[in-house]
Parts: sequence; structure tokens; C-alpha cells
Amino acid sequence: MEKLRIFKIGGKVVENQEYLDFFLENYAKIEDNKILVHGGGNWVSEMSEKLGIEVKKIDGRRITDAETLKVVVMMLAGLANKTVVAKLQAHQCNAIGLTGADGNIILSKKRPFKNGIDYGFVGDVEEVHAEALIQLIDHGFSPVLTALTHDKKGNLLNTNADTIASVLAVAISKFYEVELVFCFDLPGVLEHIEDHKSIIENINSENYSSLKKGKVINDGMIPKIDNAFDALRSGVSKVRICHSNDIIKFAHGTQQFGTLISI
Amino acid sequence: MEKLRIFKIGGKVVENQEYLDFFLENYAKIEDNKILVHGGGNWVSEMSEKLGIEVKKIDGRRITDAETLKVVVMMLAGLANKTVVAKLQAHQCNAIGLTGADGNIILSKKRPFKNGIDYGFVGDVEEVHAEALIQLIDHGFSPVLTALTHDKKGNLLNTNADTIASVLAVAISKFYEVELVFCFDLPGVLEHIEDHKSIIENINSENYSSLKKGKVINDGMIPKIDNAFDALRSGVSKVRICHSNDIIKFAHGTQQFGTLISI
Repeated sequence: MEKLRIFKIGGKVVENQEYLDFFLENYAKIEDNKILVHGGGNWVSEMSEKLGIEVKKIDGRRITDAETLKVVVMMLAGLANKTVVAKLQAHQCNAIGLTGADGNIILSKKRPFKNGIDYGFVGDVEEVHAEALIQLIDHGFSPVLTALTHDKKGNLLNTNADTIASVLAVAISKFYEVELVFCFDLPGVLEHIEDHKSIIENINSENYSSLKKGKVINDGMIPKIDNAFDALRSGVSKVRICHSNDIIKFAHGTQQFGTLISI
Repeated sequence: MEKLRIFKIGGKVVENQEYLDFFLENYAKIEDNKILVHGGGNWVSEMSEKLGIEVKKIDGRRITDAETLKVVVMMLAGLANKTVVAKLQAHQCNAIGLTGADGNIILSKKRPFKNGIDYGFVGDVEEVHAEALIQLIDHGFSPVLTALTHDKKGNLLNTNADTIASVLAVAISKFYEVELVFCFDLPGVLEHIEDHKSIIENINSENYSSLKKGKVINDGMIPKIDNAFDALRSGVSKVRICHSNDIIKFAHGTQQFGTLISI
């Protein structure tokens, strides 16, 4: 099977010009098959505040009312996505920016009202049409996806970017050997958050529960790693968590960096 | 040669939900090859005002400073484009939303400072890569373009949507027999602006100068028609100006409606 990497960059990379430029310049140099998924949540929060729309989150998840959804579409599908596309094009990477609605790539369902919480226009993924993405890649386009899906009834829905990266990875693993790479502003999962050298090189089903019990892995990281295990159990070959600056190591073929998650 | 239609809908259609929904529902039904180009200028002006950014125009052309460019990207590539895409997807049209930066479709150059006017981040089109669009169409995607181009140096540039429709029509006329259709909120070019039945059915090089001299055609329409003549001289087969609701006539194969421009 041919290889394909899915890179996910979070808001802290997209919104930091130095990190973003370094990442994109080196991402463009990677000649293997690749897909980029990005967020941009802080831009959404900042713009919401400018427009006088209250920012509401529960456990880090954004409550997306109709007005907030518009801001998400403006900032993610608009400013963040097209900024990334134009920058990649400047580095000779033939980027094409997409949401899950474009080409009907990711279908989702509006999250039902549950336990007294209405998340609003948030989509839980139902179907992934990987063929559309593969066609684009086969024709020399380099897909750049942002964190929006649609319900095929005309509604865009806000969907977590980590989730989008994972479901894409799983769907594409039927056609390619997929490595899923989460790039953020730390060099990996750290044993001591203040010590950037304390990278946990490997997390597997065996050491994961003791790492959780010992509170070595913090709360914010747990859903990311649970997500990674789900992806691995569903056909993804490798999941790595690393710094966005580690992008340079992919072009060089380095193997040991960041945190590698395996089952 | 196979046929292809390029439809351009202006801001007054995109921003009027009734017009937009009727247009898109019927656009989705047209089985022939098609490309949609849209603007959304009023949304840009409204959002600029909300954000306290002064709206400046010279002869109807927006002065696009760095902050205004961000708003253009948010509103056109974000909200307007993805709203159109999601609605088309609901009508089983496999829309894919694009700017000129995506797939490197339209390259432009920042308009130089001229006659004391600095238009800012406005792009004059230099190259159109129609092959990328044709590949997408060949693979069952239905392209929806908005009024942004890029300079291949990482900058997005604001470009008039009529111009984008025209340059695309010309570039694609090498591969297809192209009809260019400008859809707006009037039933065609009118002899008396208040009488919607006074449609000028045909404008050609012969009657155009007398129509202009007699002030029958108003100032706002002149650049549109000049543009149309340029496109016809460069290989486009037909140019039509009609109401967005006339979209229904294309599905029915009606021939006589709106204003047909010919050389």
C-alpha cells in the first residue's frame, strides 16, 4: 500500500505567524501524499468578541449558536483556510482548501440535545467520502481541510478538527497506509509540562493506563490520545504527536521524534 | 465542442435568501457542464462597518486595505461561498467551493498605484489555469468560485466577480463552447429602468453605440457590457444578462429571455 500522511495543525499553530510560516514552507517540501487539517478556534473567539457574540464553551467544546456558526465559517473556511492555501501556493504546493461540505467529503448530523446541553450547530460525523479526496490527490491537488462538515440539508456544522483528522485517517486507511500526525506547540506528550525535554516517546495500550492514573497525562491530552487509539484500532498505521516545527523531520526522513502512539 | 455555461450571481442575489434559494435549487437541476461565480460585496460592507473599518470605494470599486482584505476573505471565501456550497449539496449538486488561489486557478498581480489611487489588495488577472477546473468538472465536481485571486507570493487579492467570470469564460472557451450568463435582480438590460418589461433583447456592436449615446444604457451597466464584448471577441460564444429567477429557463431549454449580447 502506498503511504499517506494526515497532518493536523491546531489553532496555536495557525494563529502564530512564525510557527505557521515555518510549518507551511516545510510541509510544501514533503513529496509524499499528504492532507492538511487545521483549526483556528482562537480566531473564532476573538472575532465573536469583536462582534459582541458571547463565547460559550463546555469542557472546551464551543457552543455554536447560529451567529457563532457564521463566525466559524468566516474565520475557518474563510480567513484561516485561504491564508494557508495562498501561503502553500507560494511554496509550489498545489493546495486546494475545503470544508467537509465541498465535494460532499464529510457528512455529519447535528448533535442532539443531551444531558441538558444544546451544543447548537455542532456536527457528529456520520459518513466520510474519502474517494473525493483521493481523486483530488491523484490529480495533483493537495487538500487542506478545515473543521466544518455539513448535513446534506444545506447546513454547515462545526466539527472538532482533531475529530476530522481522525475520521479522515480511518476512511483513507482503506486505500493507503496512513500516518496521522497531530502538530501543536509542544514537542510531544510531556511527562512534566514545564520540561520540554521530558517527551514520552511511546504510548501504548500497556503504559497508557498507568500514565493516566499517575496523572502524568493531563486532562486536555486524554481525548486526543483516546482519539488516537480509536484511529489505530480502525486501521490507521501510526499516530504521532509532535511540535509543528518537527515538520522539517518528515522531509528528512527522521523517525524518532515526538510521541508515537501504538496499540 | 461540448457546451459549458458560466453563471455569475451578484451580491444582490447571494444576499437575498429567496432569490438565492430559488436560483440554487434550479441551478442544481441543470445537467450540462456548469461553473458558478459569485460576489457578496454588501456583506463585506456590512461586516466592515460592524468592525469599524471604513468602507471606501472609487467608481464603485472597493479600496481594499489589509483589514478590508481580511473581511473580503471572511465573507466571500467563508460565509458566502460555503453557504452556496452547502445549499447546492442539499440539492444533490456536488459543489466544490474555490477561490482563484485554490488549485492555482487564477493568478493576479496587485494593481499598481495609478493616477493617485491606491486600490490596495486588488488583483488584476494575469493567468487563468482552466485545466484545474476542467479536471474537477471531469470528476463530477461542480465548481463554485468567489471573487478572490492570488499572486503566488502568498497574498490573496480582491478581484471583481464579473471579471473573474469573464476571464474564466475566455480561458475555458479553448476547451468548451462557452455561454456566459450574468444573473442579477433585473430581467435584463432595460430601456426604461422602472419598466421591467422594456428588456433590450439583443445588444450587438451595431446598436450598442446608439444605445450608449441615447443614454438608454446606464453607467453601471456599461462596464458589464464592455466586458461582455471583450469576452465574445476572445472566444466566448454567447453572453446573456438576465434575472437570477430566469435560471429555471435554462433547465427548460428556453432560448428567448434576458438580454443576449453578440458581436
